[in-house]
Amino acid sequence: MNQIIKGKQSLIFTNPPYIISAASVAGSKEAEGPLGKLFDMTNEDDLFGAQTWEEAESTMQKEACVLALGKARVKADEIRYLFGGDLLRQGIATSMGVEALQIPMFGLFGACSTSGEALALAGMCAAAGYGKYMLAVTSSHFGSAEKEFRFPLGYANQRPLSAHWTVTGSGAFLVRAAEPEERPGGKCGQAGSAEAANAAEGDVSTGHISHVRITGVTIGKIVDYGLKDSQNMGACMAPAAMDTIVQNFIDTGRTEQDYDRIITGDLGYVGQSILFDLVRGKGFDIRKKHLDCGMTIFDQETQDTHAGGSGCGCAAVTLASFVIPKIEKGEWQRVLFVPTGALMSTVSFNEGASVPGIAHGIVLEHCPL
Amino acid sequence: MNQIIKGKQSLIFTNPPYIISAASVAGSKEAEGPLGKLFDMTNEDDLFGAQTWEEAESTMQKEACVLALGKARVKADEIRYLFGGDLLRQGIATSMGVEALQIPMFGLFGACSTSGEALALAGMCAAAGYGKYMLAVTSSHFGSAEKEFRFPLGYANQRPLSAHWTVTGSGAFLVRAAEPEERPGGKCGQAGSAEAANAAEGDVSTGHISHVRITGVTIGKIVDYGLKDSQNMGACMAPAAMDTIVQNFIDTGRTEQDYDRIITGDLGYVGQSILFDLVRGKGFDIRKKHLDCGMTIFDQETQDTHAGGSGCGCAAVTLASFVIPKIEKGEWQRVLFVPTGALMSTVSFNEGASVPGIAHGIVLEHCPL
Repeated sequence: MNQIIKGKQSLIFTNPPYIISAASVAGSKEAEGPLGKLFDMTNEDDLFGAQTWEEAESTMQKEACVLALGKARVKADEIRYLFGGDLLRQGIATSMGVEALQIPMFGLFGACSTSGEALALAGMCAAAGYGKYMLAVTSSHFGSAEKEFRFPLGYANQRPLSAHWTVTGSGAFLVRAAEPEERPGGKCGQAGSAEAANAAEGDVSTGHISHVRITGVTIGKIVDYGLKDSQNMGACMAPAAMDTIVQNFIDTGRTEQDYDRIITGDLGYVGQSILFDLVRGKGFDIRKKHLDCGMTIFDQETQDTHAGGSGCGCAAVTLASFVIPKIEKGEWQRVLFVPTGALMSTVSFNEGASVPGIAHGIVLEHCPL
Repeated sequence: MNQIIKGKQSLIFTNPPYIISAASVAGSKEAEGPLGKLFDMTNEDDLFGAQTWEEAESTMQKEACVLALGKARVKADEIRYLFGGDLLRQGIATSMGVEALQIPMFGLFGACSTSGEALALAGMCAAAGYGKYMLAVTSSHFGSAEKEFRFPLGYANQRPLSAHWTVTGSGAFLVRAAEPEERPGGKCGQAGSAEAANAAEGDVSTGHISHVRITGVTIGKIVDYGLKDSQNMGACMAPAAMDTIVQNFIDTGRTEQDYDRIITGDLGYVGQSILFDLVRGKGFDIRKKHLDCGMTIFDQETQDTHAGGSGCGCAAVTLASFVIPKIEKGEWQRVLFVPTGALMSTVSFNEGASVPGIAHGIVLEHCPL
């Protein structure tokens, strides 16, 4: 067996798969934000050469996949399975986006937690020996999301301060199964054997090496505190983020001290403060370790994005452009990446249903070659 | 390793997981059809005690899960991961349906192929040792689907003869990982060792045994012949069904002779004839082995269902109520189950996009205890 079942919801991989490349494609507002210079590709009119917002989102997904493949010099037909999703009804951004790649695919929906769901399944399938390469991709687009969930852009509708700004972006991650000789001597963070180092170095020319491994996952369950305000998704998702973070601590025996960063997807300013309170209620204090992708991707002072960024693309492009490079360099040794999703549709909202949340935890570690 | 990678898209499990129980919940029209007496639960007004079609669909999913758990005498908190999906935007039937079970979950979208996607991932995770029990569930509802994709029911809109009738139903499948001692001596269909038989018999009292195992999967890719008629989904999905069936033959070295039945999800009468032609073009003839769930669940003569049944629930309830019992009894030794999905939304349709298809293949075999 290539993995250890931990507690109620977690897995620890004994020979953890690598993220060998990550790519980010983002829109114009994101390009003007704090991470703007880190994205692999941005576009001035947010249409990426397409005629509609939906086609633009599909184009971003395809470009992100092609970039991730190109960085690692891996061809699309070498990818065993693709795991992808987006926010649109019936996941059409993904269907239309990845179609040209012709990779056997699993369509996913976990709202803004989908990047975590895709990375979890890609890591699990690679660790299980179901193929050498897996691809995970997610996206969101401000234009298509406003059309899907809110008001026509031409209305210039006023937004409450608790509302998020959907990120225009797509992140793709190429996961490679570890070879038996790459198994570290002990935990990641300790030097591997000489053989492992040599095996890894021999791979440099093909771009297949990386210091970033998915060492474990904590799969989330649906958490519903009964909140119904779809314009305050931070509050709706914070309980799910707390549940997954605390469950990761319980399952693995770790605390916030064992992570350099605990990174949520898009709780924003409102959700962050609720998360801190809820986690404190469980006996942990993550304030010094927490970072939220939705608060990182935009500048709240100058970009008028209210609670922060959101969408399947928010956590994905922040992970690809900002978080993974820091783990690769060893600046952060172990990160708990926890994208959060609000499970709702215009129909469920109009019928008065609550907005439950879900969050999936991915443990990313810097590992020596 | 607990599996063998076969060809481009397939996996063969060396110690295949079991489907230890399956449950079906269906609506009134389905209750009047040829499989009516086989469903575990049906409801006269299709609302299942709820106020809306969406809530009714969620209720069906929950009831199907509870029934599958009850049949095997397994509790919800023993299930490691749940894989579920439906046709509605942002998968709300699943989110609201399985929430009460509090099982860590992966939300999926593969249109009407989702039951195959869910069973594939449940089987793969069980075979990989990620947990003892996995639950797969999908649903569709005529009322919620018409609202989502077509016209308000009150319009009494006329339907072309190539259109499908969305099945009101939900099927749930409880997958159990095989213990090492349950590994058959050779292939399924041959007697296992005495130890294995004893181990299995010792389990009878807890309802954890079955003769039905998921011995392999063939994951589909998106296939697009450029068709745009969402009222003729059989034609849109037939190329994907052909692609997955033929890929299964190529990957495994089998032909139609090696299967007692090749069962598609919801191609219907139009899609079936196209499938036969396409498969014949690849040098195979599946006419004597083919069965389509959409043609099986309704009586075309008396039920006015045109091309046949469709929806994530169509293949799921037909598999649970009709197909699995035949494999359990050994009437069919090996079945290739291939639910098919049409990847579209009202937005993609209105924007003039084509309707590509996807199909996932699940190999189900009768195995001795």
